[in-house]
Amino acid sequence: MAKDKASRRPRAETPKGFRDYFGADVTERKAMLDAVAEVYHRYGFDPLETSAVETVEALGKFLPDVDRPNEGVFGWQDEDGDWLALRYDLTAPLARVAAQFRNDLPSPYRRYAMGPVWRNEKPGPGRFRQFYQCDADTVGSASVAADAEICAMLSDALEVVGIPRGDYIVRVNNRKVLNGVMEVAGVLDPSDPAKFEAERGIVLRAIDKIDRLGETGVRALLGSGRKDESGDFTKGAGLSDDQAAIIMSFVNAPRAINERMNDFSEFLSVDSETLEAHPEARTAVSIARAWTSQSPSEQPSKNRLTSLAAIGILGDLVKGSSQGQDGVSELAQIADYLEAQGYGPDRIVVDPSVVRGLGYYTGPVFEAELTFEIFDEKGRKRQFGSVAGGGRYDDLVKRFTGQSVPATGVSIGVDRLLAALRAKGRAGAEAQGPVVVTVMDRDRMGDYMAMVGELRRAGLRAELYLGNPKNFGNQLKYADARKSPVAVIQGSDEATRGVVVLKDLVLGAQIAAGASLEEWKSRPAQVEVPRADLVRAVQDMLS
Amino acid sequence: MAKDKASRRPRAETPKGFRDYFGADVTERKAMLDAVAEVYHRYGFDPLETSAVETVEALGKFLPDVDRPNEGVFGWQDEDGDWLALRYDLTAPLARVAAQFRNDLPSPYRRYAMGPVWRNEKPGPGRFRQFYQCDADTVGSASVAADAEICAMLSDALEVVGIPRGDYIVRVNNRKVLNGVMEVAGVLDPSDPAKFEAERGIVLRAIDKIDRLGETGVRALLGSGRKDESGDFTKGAGLSDDQAAIIMSFVNAPRAINERMNDFSEFLSVDSETLEAHPEARTAVSIARAWTSQSPSEQPSKNRLTSLAAIGILGDLVKGSSQGQDGVSELAQIADYLEAQGYGPDRIVVDPSVVRGLGYYTGPVFEAELTFEIFDEKGRKRQFGSVAGGGRYDDLVKRFTGQSVPATGVSIGVDRLLAALRAKGRAGAEAQGPVVVTVMDRDRMGDYMAMVGELRRAGLRAELYLGNPKNFGNQLKYADARKSPVAVIQGSDEATRGVVVLKDLVLGAQIAAGASLEEWKSRPAQVEVPRADLVRAVQDMLS
Repeated sequence: MAKDKASRRPRAETPKGFRDYFGADVTERKAMLDAVAEVYHRYGFDPLETSAVETVEALGKFLPDVDRPNEGVFGWQDEDGDWLALRYDLTAPLARVAAQFRNDLPSPYRRYAMGPVWRNEKPGPGRFRQFYQCDADTVGSASVAADAEICAMLSDALEVVGIPRGDYIVRVNNRKVLNGVMEVAGVLDPSDPAKFEAERGIVLRAIDKIDRLGETGVRALLGSGRKDESGDFTKGAGLSDDQAAIIMSFVNAPRAINERMNDFSEFLSVDSETLEAHPEARTAVSIARAWTSQSPSEQPSKNRLTSLAAIGILGDLVKGSSQGQDGVSELAQIADYLEAQGYGPDRIVVDPSVVRGLGYYTGPVFEAELTFEIFDEKGRKRQFGSVAGGGRYDDLVKRFTGQSVPATGVSIGVDRLLAALRAKGRAGAEAQGPVVVTVMDRDRMGDYMAMVGELRRAGLRAELYLGNPKNFGNQLKYADARKSPVAVIQGSDEATRGVVVLKDLVLGAQIAAGASLEEWKSRPAQVEVPRADLVRAVQDMLS
Repeated sequence: MAKDKASRRPRAETPKGFRDYFGADVTERKAMLDAVAEVYHRYGFDPLETSAVETVEALGKFLPDVDRPNEGVFGWQDEDGDWLALRYDLTAPLARVAAQFRNDLPSPYRRYAMGPVWRNEKPGPGRFRQFYQCDADTVGSASVAADAEICAMLSDALEVVGIPRGDYIVRVNNRKVLNGVMEVAGVLDPSDPAKFEAERGIVLRAIDKIDRLGETGVRALLGSGRKDESGDFTKGAGLSDDQAAIIMSFVNAPRAINERMNDFSEFLSVDSETLEAHPEARTAVSIARAWTSQSPSEQPSKNRLTSLAAIGILGDLVKGSSQGQDGVSELAQIADYLEAQGYGPDRIVVDPSVVRGLGYYTGPVFEAELTFEIFDEKGRKRQFGSVAGGGRYDDLVKRFTGQSVPATGVSIGVDRLLAALRAKGRAGAEAQGPVVVTVMDRDRMGDYMAMVGELRRAGLRAELYLGNPKNFGNQLKYADARKSPVAVIQGSDEATRGVVVLKDLVLGAQIAAGASLEEWKSRPAQVEVPRADLVRAVQDMLS
């Protein structure tokens, strides 16, 4: 009978893949997002908050992740027969808004959005079905000035939340450049875009794995295929040696250039022997030298040189592809615009190795990577990696209106960035809990409430113990659980004498942690003060 | 064919009953909630953010609104067969959390939560299926000190967002008192709680309509029933004259007392003739006089007298009902606790007319009402009304654990409070848009980006015009739509001369609105400044 009753009780559990956020989890994220919003605001972006629910029809299928195109949404049928679903990102609702309110919104429309999104996928460790996104997009501008602005803003946002310059890098690439390289390598035919689609998919995935597989591994995947350590075979793209060489020079050259550009003086003083050994740097070096000699009075900046080098090499690679050349000149323009605002290669670089999201975006692509090292779950050091990504997607609004509306934007991975800040000890975790006013005499609650009221009016965070006051030890345990710095105590004896006792719980913890006798003596863990001095005395103890 | 294509396009529409929030809609709400959170924090409440999705099992059916018990949720079946749903309030998830984490949370647990909730009900004008709630609750305290604290905190929260003292009142009642009155009136039998349920429902709804129907209307509903102006008949509770008289004295007496208490001196100086005309005030007057004479050195405060008067009258009404007497002494304690913290009747009053939510709560009930007048949709003046409500609900966690856990809390109606702030002109609408840097020469975008970068680095909100720059008129229209205070202009001529032109758009608007010639002359609508002085000159123009 009792068992029967128990089995009818609902389980007190979050659904699988969902979680709760307590205290500092909430305040740290909020502080971070508030700081980001402040930057977005300064750039002229307006907040937009759409509802969590959209029609399935309006949402469409726009997940940027090429590896999981069938990732699902949480959906249901309305009583009216309409299918509704929870938004899976903040871009699809933006597209709907941009179409629905196209006559009312300023054009171009800069907006930011922050909030949860939902994905109906198998939950895993650290992988949740509800998580935060933080997006900024400009709708209605075809100018790459809009893309450059997004990159600069992303850089500012990272710094303002606590990632210092040098600990992050924003990389910029352009989908059109890769398309150009593919075209030159003969795996893209502009007159028949569907042709070689499978091959291009393999090439994209191979390039994406350069960090893990190295040159040899990527090269194998471009060709016949690759057998990994476990003996599993991954089929390759089947490119010829010549074709693979074009792709490989795309993969390798800019990396070499960027490294070299990090030390500009070394680059300009490169000797002919080194240049012999690094033929891929030749174009960049000659451009750099030409640039320097052209205007000897004005030393070119690292940023301009880096961009010129990368752009020179990429320009060579896509020769013969008009789309590729468009892409290169867009990159050159972005580099110019960033240069004009003073964003150097210590913050933003043109880097053709960025391929994430290239399947989704149509023009410039951005990715912000944190470059400091952390320890992974197995205790190994590794770079923190990507925390934000974005790019240009010119076809999103077209679904609704039939008209192409250019758009570009960025999405910050809120949980990852927050994890990074915590890893670096830069998330503003609340150091101190509330002052706790304890209850000695149950029938003098009014007196205790008066104390807590005075403390709060003075701006102090303070609580009255509201549990059963019988066991005083429980009250001190509660104060401890609350990380309280000071407990206020007044028994009937103290009340008669018009005093209160303040217990310094921070010191108490230090003593428990082994403070010396001198420290103990120098600072009393408990003081008695006149009741009228309560607020001042607590303020003294907290300062 | 073209038509066919168009019909396949998705509609760009929010689902019925949902809406988008733009710009100031978002920032004003955020500013309000941030201010409220600051108060909650000071009171020792910790934030909790649960996910939007819960199991249907965990959610249960706990809607506080007695009139619509079958109000639905948005639910669907998971692939695992579990039924999931969007939360319909923030209390049900709190109950689940309190049960799930009962061994980890501090006890008592003070938490606040802010966020959207969803209701699957027919949308109507101004009635949405997603809306914000802002709750604070204390779980695990049986003390009415917890209830008093919630009332004080609610009062502080209203003032901090911009409702000044005098423009709001927090009313406190107790479900147990009404139960006591019902028991005395013979429509509640403690040994058979289900008996007279229908009658009690009619009585509750009748009391709730006192403002609209007046005494006569309520009295009719307590008896045989009431015919309204259209001729429609509403069945009454069928009470006898004696029974109805008890309910009516509950409805009327405290109102009269409270009015009288608003002028304490008048109350104490009431003459015997007036007292004859208001027999319901007799008890309160005698208590007040007795109190004053008991401690003649110490004038009782209005708050204490109001409470004593109300409590005296209520005590008389529930004589014979132990539950009713518990309720009255709880109200007396709450009044004492608030008095101890200095919350007078200008902020919080004991008021038995509060019946909203009495069907849901088990002890003290609170309601915050805004007392200033606004014009309704028909242009009639009326009081703004309720913006927050709450109370004690001791059985919520029991569903999960089998153990009763006392809890009390309040929920602020975010949209209503925001509407009130707007009605009073107290919502911090953004007065000013961004500075707009216009584009005269398409090939000098880098120069314009440098300008906008400098402005932003100086902390100014600034935008570069990113649309097609061909038509300069469109750029000024854009600046106007953005409520921009200053447009920055630099054509090739100005560039050559190393200057920029600043156009004062605020002044421009004033001139358009009919500024005098003197004003026009005294302040040039357009100035030319050296390019190097851009930031300083814009700052001057904005100040």
